[in-house]
Amino acid sequence: MSHSERLLLGPGPSNPYPEVMEALARPVLGHLDPEFLAVLDETCARLRSALRTSNALTLPVSGTGSAGMEACFVNLLEPGDVTIVGVNGVFGERMCEVARRCGAEVVRVEEEWGRAIDPQRLLDAHSGRPEARLVAVVHAETSTGVENDVAPLGALQETETLLLVDAVTSLGGIPLEVDAWGIDAVYSGTQKCLGVPPGLAPLSFSARAAERVRSRATPVPSWYLDLGLIGEYTGAARRYHHTAPISMVYALHAGLGVLLEEGLVASWERHRSAGAALQEALPPLGFRLLAEEGRRLPQLTLAGVSDGVDESALRSTLLERFGIEVGGALGGFAGKAWRIGLMGHCARERSVAALLEALSSELE
Amino acid sequence: MSHSERLLLGPGPSNPYPEVMEALARPVLGHLDPEFLAVLDETCARLRSALRTSNALTLPVSGTGSAGMEACFVNLLEPGDVTIVGVNGVFGERMCEVARRCGAEVVRVEEEWGRAIDPQRLLDAHSGRPEARLVAVVHAETSTGVENDVAPLGALQETETLLLVDAVTSLGGIPLEVDAWGIDAVYSGTQKCLGVPPGLAPLSFSARAAERVRSRATPVPSWYLDLGLIGEYTGAARRYHHTAPISMVYALHAGLGVLLEEGLVASWERHRSAGAALQEALPPLGFRLLAEEGRRLPQLTLAGVSDGVDESALRSTLLERFGIEVGGALGGFAGKAWRIGLMGHCARERSVAALLEALSSELE
Repeated sequence: MSHSERLLLGPGPSNPYPEVMEALARPVLGHLDPEFLAVLDETCARLRSALRTSNALTLPVSGTGSAGMEACFVNLLEPGDVTIVGVNGVFGERMCEVARRCGAEVVRVEEEWGRAIDPQRLLDAHSGRPEARLVAVVHAETSTGVENDVAPLGALQETETLLLVDAVTSLGGIPLEVDAWGIDAVYSGTQKCLGVPPGLAPLSFSARAAERVRSRATPVPSWYLDLGLIGEYTGAARRYHHTAPISMVYALHAGLGVLLEEGLVASWERHRSAGAALQEALPPLGFRLLAEEGRRLPQLTLAGVSDGVDESALRSTLLERFGIEVGGALGGFAGKAWRIGLMGHCARERSVAALLEALSSELE
Repeated sequence: MSHSERLLLGPGPSNPYPEVMEALARPVLGHLDPEFLAVLDETCARLRSALRTSNALTLPVSGTGSAGMEACFVNLLEPGDVTIVGVNGVFGERMCEVARRCGAEVVRVEEEWGRAIDPQRLLDAHSGRPEARLVAVVHAETSTGVENDVAPLGALQETETLLLVDAVTSLGGIPLEVDAWGIDAVYSGTQKCLGVPPGLAPLSFSARAAERVRSRATPVPSWYLDLGLIGEYTGAARRYHHTAPISMVYALHAGLGVLLEEGLVASWERHRSAGAALQEALPPLGFRLLAEEGRRLPQLTLAGVSDGVDESALRSTLLERFGIEVGGALGGFAGKAWRIGLMGHCARERSVAALLEALSSELE
């Protein structure tokens, strides 16, 4: 079956780096082959560099970004635990749902979709429920294009409460400092700013998060995502847990190689620059920037469509005529806005130029 | 990072079909792109053909085979439910552990490792505990190379109890008839007899298994593996759940294409023939066939190593000098036996010839 080649400017997946596609095609090795274990070790080391952490427990979970979210909650929460969750979009909502299924009591700190959560409100919620085991927030809300400020939450390091951050859309695209910001648990996805196909979830736990897992009173409800067991395979013990997704690990290894060779700061700047160019050009074409000014992500733009425009039909035209994918919006923005991604290999002026030219020709 | 090319004759992964490697390198599409959804639909249709089922709820779970196991148990069991599990190797043990973490009461029907479980014993256990919600058994025990007889368990169709089968190592390698045998829930892996890299878990639920999920009193504890939600993406609703692992779906689509073009019966015969050739040649070289005669899998041979041979050193030599991987054994067989796989693209006389020639030169 043949299919088209697209320019992927939706909320992910983005087009992988060419080096990643080459890596996917490499010969498969066994999951205990010393040569594969070397690739896996280097992948974990590269993840530490990309996340700016020295956490020993840093690895790719064998599932997509949502599996990374679930891995964090099922390992860190036990039934009856209290968790505070910031909610200003789909992925904050998803965190609440996952935590609830762990049997946790969820304290929601809500903000309007499209606006950032004031971190002081999360800290205040923690002051009101200091027994909370976890404060969780989405760094880059993929549903609205908003960045939530994470660094001030490092104040939780002085408490017994852990800080959990969703970095699915932020890793590689905007500054993220796991150790400097006092993040205890973080997960990401491969198909956004890392320029790798979807399928793995980078994850990292601080020493105190790892200790939380070890000292649980109840077993982790998920065997597949039990980080105590997974860590015995990725760590020195090399104990078989499940068969690692070999080809996707190659791909992540290669994507992280591209990122680190370019340099994190250069990658952030490239995303910033591409996003700024897009966000400057959209209003003259009739699109409104719906995310809060000053908290807009460069890699994901929520673009309100003019009232007279059939956004769904225009997206189909972009896809069919130009081979350019942009994303529809979610929740209250559905049918009224697009989500335009400039992520990883796609975060370039040429992507912006291609989209603007196509839009201009269709909207004139 | 470059690495070696291996002939993968361990317990999986096997070497993917060339068509699969080509598919992996295809351009990535978005998970809601009509062209991707067509690939996904055809993948599910091919899975139905390979599993010999008409089950509507048939899809690839976004994780490895163990995620497929977990998906079955977390969707079908609720806390306090009784489940009967056949245990004659690592994967039966793993089923017990996964079921226990669901809060289920596990009734074990044990058999010596290397021997098949008499299905009548499972039916007798069911007669003793007719309230059991599930009877679970591994079709092809990858830890011992034994086939458990599944067809007689179809008698459970006359009861309220569901039949769950692990087909990780059997699918594509030996006859498996999901509908004809009355299997309600089945999962597999991609990296064995399907000739695809590890990373997805084919899964299929009968109508009554799907109804069991719908009528649960408690939510599925795993959001990521909730088949009610996943089925709304793979089915007509196309509701976004998590981002599908695009490239791995291409790979599975291609691997199933190879299998179905060859024909299931021809693939079973190719596995049978390769396995027979290996199992005939091993004893003269000093290896003992440790699985019960008459219940030996052709695609996975448990080969006892002569007392004087350092099995680990010999495996390393095979890998380093000949680029051939065979697997070590598990449990009581560890250090005393190998697991030799002839799966998917590797189930050919030339694999047997390469291994035998290498072994002969090292053992002489």
